[in-house]
Amino acid sequence: MGTSGVAHNGGVSSPLEELPVGETTHRQLDFLLASHRLTSVYRLNRLLDGSRSESSAEHSWHLAVSPIALAADHAPGVDLATVVIMLLIHDLVEIDAGDVPIYDEQRRLDIVAEEHRAAVALFARLPPAQGAALLSLWREFEEAQTEAARFARAVDRLQPLLLHWASDGAAWGGRSVTVRQEPRLIAALADFLP
Amino acid sequence: MGTSGVAHNGGVSSPLEELPVGETTHRQLDFLLASHRLTSVYRLNRLLDGSRSESSAEHSWHLAVSPIALAADHAPGVDLATVVIMLLIHDLVEIDAGDVPIYDEQRRLDIVAEEHRAAVALFARLPPAQGAALLSLWREFEEAQTEAARFARAVDRLQPLLLHWASDGAAWGGRSVTVRQEPRLIAALADFLP
Repeated sequence: MGTSGVAHNGGVSSPLEELPVGETTHRQLDFLLASHRLTSVYRLNRLLDGSRSESSAEHSWHLAVSPIALAADHAPGVDLATVVIMLLIHDLVEIDAGDVPIYDEQRRLDIVAEEHRAAVALFARLPPAQGAALLSLWREFEEAQTEAARFARAVDRLQPLLLHWASDGAAWGGRSVTVRQEPRLIAALADFLP
Repeated sequence: MGTSGVAHNGGVSSPLEELPVGETTHRQLDFLLASHRLTSVYRLNRLLDGSRSESSAEHSWHLAVSPIALAADHAPGVDLATVVIMLLIHDLVEIDAGDVPIYDEQRRLDIVAEEHRAAVALFARLPPAQGAALLSLWREFEEAQTEAARFARAVDRLQPLLLHWASDGAAWGGRSVTVRQEPRLIAALADFLP
């Protein structure tokens, strides 16, 4: 907060108001608190133990771990930190815009502008230079023009298919599949083969 | 898998056996699938909406996002990628060893050897050089001797206190606190003040 007690996120009162930190730190903590709401956004697929749906925060964690295992062999030209950070933040827009299953194509078109507004608003909570850098990284993922973004998007496609395959369909609500019935898994894996 | 069909994780059969990938990729995907079980390990604190306990996967995600916001101003000498990756993997041992609340000091002493065994076993699923690198990074966090590890541990201390504070105690089951009653939050924040 500032000594003024004025909130930095568009005048909305923040639970951080009373913390004895300067404006830069206040903004950073406010962004982190706002980001935590991604734990309450749920995806279509379930956890491997079938107990509940996977949250988008858990999905983002698992995606971010993936390049640590996969990048050196499958995307050796990509900067690991860039891909990991891109994957950590790429779904934050779902806090406002929600998760849209990949097969819902009309809804995916509708949501582009909504997600962009959400990204601008969320990253604006940070100090300006930090917010601009993360907005730029989020756009890089969306635009899919760089090698880092293409690899990140391949990981994002592969992960739910991998869970689906490993749980024999349980991760997607019991619709059983085999690898022969699931050519998309093979196609996604092909992105990772030399 | 290999063409031999022999599992790589100590002979335990894997749902990945039939995937048409080589041994390196098989080991990497097997590690990622095993890691996903961190979504079924729960922590003491609840989500900000109070709906359920936070999983250790969600905690790890939120910790990994934290240095993206905090490191440049509060730990400028630390390599961002090192800290982020350290935080992404540091709790994976809980899949076998469980989460131990920070206040349970006797249990925390008991669990050190158990966590080490869990780390060795989990990272051994990866190709050897990758597994050794992650085990080394996990040990760096545990030993708390480097600047990166100390910063990562400060983030790990700060995050639950921040959730606690922001939810007025709801994140820890309704035990209401104020910042004046919670000197540990101030102490944790002090690690982030210049």
